[in-house]
Amino acid sequence: MENSSVIDLLLKHKSIRKYTADPIPEPVLNKVLEAGTRAATTGNMQLYSVIVTKDPERKRALAPLHFNQPMITEAPAVLTFTADVNRFQQWCEQREAGRAYDNLLWYVCAAIDCMLMAQNTVVAAEAMGLGTCFLGTTLYTAKEQCAFFDLPAGVMPLTTLTLGYPAEQPEATDRLPLTGIVHSERYRAYTPDAIDGIYGPKEALPQTQRLLAENGLPNLAQIFTQRRYPLADNLKFSEHYLELLKTQGFLNGK
Amino acid sequence: MENSSVIDLLLKHKSIRKYTADPIPEPVLNKVLEAGTRAATTGNMQLYSVIVTKDPERKRALAPLHFNQPMITEAPAVLTFTADVNRFQQWCEQREAGRAYDNLLWYVCAAIDCMLMAQNTVVAAEAMGLGTCFLGTTLYTAKEQCAFFDLPAGVMPLTTLTLGYPAEQPEATDRLPLTGIVHSERYRAYTPDAIDGIYGPKEALPQTQRLLAENGLPNLAQIFTQRRYPLADNLKFSEHYLELLKTQGFLNGK
Repeated sequence: MENSSVIDLLLKHKSIRKYTADPIPEPVLNKVLEAGTRAATTGNMQLYSVIVTKDPERKRALAPLHFNQPMITEAPAVLTFTADVNRFQQWCEQREAGRAYDNLLWYVCAAIDCMLMAQNTVVAAEAMGLGTCFLGTTLYTAKEQCAFFDLPAGVMPLTTLTLGYPAEQPEATDRLPLTGIVHSERYRAYTPDAIDGIYGPKEALPQTQRLLAENGLPNLAQIFTQRRYPLADNLKFSEHYLELLKTQGFLNGK
Repeated sequence: MENSSVIDLLLKHKSIRKYTADPIPEPVLNKVLEAGTRAATTGNMQLYSVIVTKDPERKRALAPLHFNQPMITEAPAVLTFTADVNRFQQWCEQREAGRAYDNLLWYVCAAIDCMLMAQNTVVAAEAMGLGTCFLGTTLYTAKEQCAFFDLPAGVMPLTTLTLGYPAEQPEATDRLPLTGIVHSERYRAYTPDAIDGIYGPKEALPQTQRLLAENGLPNLAQIFTQRRYPLADNLKFSEHYLELLKTQGFLNGK
């Protein structure tokens, strides 16, 4: 009953940030995306669009919107995943059915659809020998992404995936113990001891110790709040994203 | 290079709404969830929690929050997926690192993390012979879900997955042509002809014709806007969800 090669593939996942120069054959990319679209979708509405960037000029122009992370120019293909109610609503209007989906509920539904599709795309890509890396920078520069890709109202950028044949084989990263994220019947409040138990193994890793030494900080949590994702940035990006939800038409009717 | 059994599994996906009475062995469920957590996650923060409902009493009590869809009581396991910054922030506070993630940006990051994990869970479940169905009702009753599962601030319900051994083998549902959802380099505006081309095959399906006859409506788009997901409901649920984002602490600092 068990298809162990699938489980093995999922358990072996690693983000790949270095790629060979080999282009991705069009039939391979199409098969990967087709497998992506087989993911479940709300009411079978497929409320997403994917923009493929392969042109070297466009990748160079896109790189600053991802804080010049080298994967953007080095990966043969960059996929930008968007929550998209525009196409569906245009169909509805063309059929005299009115507009119903330019609101927060459907931003969330579309985002869910889009991310299910994105993860299926990753699994399919890895099954075809490709490596992938998600870039969170898409949210920070969401407004600029809209301009760069000509995204109309009803479309919001969510995440970006670089795609190519791996030129590195990194170690798998750690994960929290399953008991730290799964709850039985009800969400159990985390006691201080439980938090220590869940995050202790991560804090004890050699790479964590290296990070602390490099950053001159006393613990890993402060690496996150002081260096990687500090509050002031988060509030600024949150404000921009909320503003964009308005201008892209997802906060109507409230 | 190609792992064709993985691609086949993805291409064959169908939502399963009828389950046998067989329970899911604990090691199987754990392996499925472990494979789920191997999905990529923002900064390896794993900003999600999954609540497993197996107790028959609790499933009966949960059913009304999913509009009494029978899968809730019939499936041996119901997984409720939540975007969760609470655990991470509790860790940060315990390490005197402050709070930084109770804002809109990190709701979206956590939702992305959560849905990538959810889709990996689906793929793993199907590889283990299980069937799954996502329920969108979680968003409609998000506030009630918070009360039902004791979700603290920093946690938002996103979606629900029923899980069990299949007692049906439905046909695969249709999907839009890939050219309808993939854009090259820039988002291309959809012309009226393009919309007709993308949605035409779906409109011509025999099951669409049956739906129109049953509902006395002239086209499929109106089935969506008049019957399935009408505007008045969408605005009401949007308002509730926005209110919940506030009360769960994701709209701070704006």
